[in-house]
Amino acid sequence: MKFVSATIHNEPFIGLLYENKVIDLHKAEKDIFEITSFPETLFECVALGDKFIQDVQQIVDKIKEDGSEGYLYPLQDIKINAPITKPTKNIYCVGKNYREHAIEMGSVEDIPKHVMLFSKSPTTIIGHDEEIDPHLHITNELDYEGELAVVIGKKGKRINEEDAMDYVFGYTIVNDVTARNLQAQHKQFLLGKSLDTSCPMGPYLVHKSTIKNPYQLSIKTKVNDELRQNGNTKDMIFSIEHIISTISQGTTLEPGDIIATGTPSGVGKGFNPPKFLTPGDIVEIEIEEIGILKNKIMV
Amino acid sequence: MKFVSATIHNEPFIGLLYENKVIDLHKAEKDIFEITSFPETLFECVALGDKFIQDVQQIVDKIKEDGSEGYLYPLQDIKINAPITKPTKNIYCVGKNYREHAIEMGSVEDIPKHVMLFSKSPTTIIGHDEEIDPHLHITNELDYEGELAVVIGKKGKRINEEDAMDYVFGYTIVNDVTARNLQAQHKQFLLGKSLDTSCPMGPYLVHKSTIKNPYQLSIKTKVNDELRQNGNTKDMIFSIEHIISTISQGTTLEPGDIIATGTPSGVGKGFNPPKFLTPGDIVEIEIEEIGILKNKIMV
Repeated sequence: MKFVSATIHNEPFIGLLYENKVIDLHKAEKDIFEITSFPETLFECVALGDKFIQDVQQIVDKIKEDGSEGYLYPLQDIKINAPITKPTKNIYCVGKNYREHAIEMGSVEDIPKHVMLFSKSPTTIIGHDEEIDPHLHITNELDYEGELAVVIGKKGKRINEEDAMDYVFGYTIVNDVTARNLQAQHKQFLLGKSLDTSCPMGPYLVHKSTIKNPYQLSIKTKVNDELRQNGNTKDMIFSIEHIISTISQGTTLEPGDIIATGTPSGVGKGFNPPKFLTPGDIVEIEIEEIGILKNKIMV
Repeated sequence: MKFVSATIHNEPFIGLLYENKVIDLHKAEKDIFEITSFPETLFECVALGDKFIQDVQQIVDKIKEDGSEGYLYPLQDIKINAPITKPTKNIYCVGKNYREHAIEMGSVEDIPKHVMLFSKSPTTIIGHDEEIDPHLHITNELDYEGELAVVIGKKGKRINEEDAMDYVFGYTIVNDVTARNLQAQHKQFLLGKSLDTSCPMGPYLVHKSTIKNPYQLSIKTKVNDELRQNGNTKDMIFSIEHIISTISQGTTLEPGDIIATGTPSGVGKGFNPPKFLTPGDIVEIEIEEIGILKNKIMV
């Protein structure tokens, strides 16, 4: 199941990808079951957990049975938004979670022994096809980082690694856009990672049941069609289970929390000379079984 | 004007300190002006800016005139909550913003040349008199940091230092409780700063008009009546204006955003041997013109 937050004719709706079309879930629920139980946003739906998935499954089954088309939109008619636009806290990000990326950022000394966690302000979030502000007045070292992001579906604390996947709702793609000069200058990463529009997210929020193995997904980042990152989630140093368990030992995780799991090697800073982003550049991040997140740097 | 988020007989309300009593602002507005314009939470009131302050002033004037007591509660009858319990993002924190503290955490080399910014998850927030969970299963290096916190009152980006104070609603006290072992182990500070209950805040949100000079406020932290921190906001390395301007160059600041401005010297880690917090300890942070924030470490 691939969910979208989207708008059609300027009306927001939550949808489900269905054979190159999108089911308007509110409309479908109302027409088929004559009820309106789904909350307005995907953020709220995520908190409903299995109940939400079961209800959506019933809608899908009914559409398969009836072939009804009344609440299906062609994909090209909708504007896709970030799956979660207003989380209740910063986006968690794992630093240097791929060996080769840690090395390209410094040396083997930079390979972390413990999960490195920082955050991005929620004002960074934009959707697929929205533009990234290059903030040229403060940086000329804007960089991309293609990442698999986990969306938490259930509140929890002191979660064991064995139970951690029960707390995951699903997955999406995040571009952890970074101003390298600010990241270095301010020591802690928050500021260099929190420029407005520096967290493109989406296009889909994919339920975990749809992903066969989250550790067998290729991650490719292209800038203007040039392949820059070509990694695979199998190379994560710290597993999703370990990350969730580590955070939750002291901090309550909540539905709708977003955890970007780190980027593979091939970021702009890793090249000699570095290949930073400039206005007009198109960044595309493709993660297997999820989709392609595409954003242009604002001219 | 000193505002409180509080509950009385288990009913939440927003109040204003008035001669050792607290005005129930909703009740007063309804009784005096026969309207209910104030939003439910202080977080929302902050966004109303000057309009809110003017309306509250009218209530105060009327009470002074009439001497009416119907919507005043004795301070001891209410339970004070954190002024803002659910911000829409992490709490911004400035690291090493006092010279002597930077030195006690390392050496003169640690005095920052640029504002160092990290964050605490909103799940850390508790109120005055609530208990701090020591999280003994993951740390035996729990430390206090008494800090002046700024609450943003107006949305803004690329704010000049000269205009920065226009964006401040007021001030409160924050205890930036820190697990030193986690702070060190995970390199970036987020995790060691984000244990649940590790951000006691309050007791009051003091409007900026009430503070004569935010750079002439003594900050004292006592642990079990032993004076540990005895600083003054005049010793901040980076001013509030500079911090606001720096963050907002790339990141939109929003009403209700909280910025803890750093701690003076005298934290537990600064002693030899270190004086970390243990269950039963009482931490009191007093900031001139604001009040005393007291919290016990849970036994």
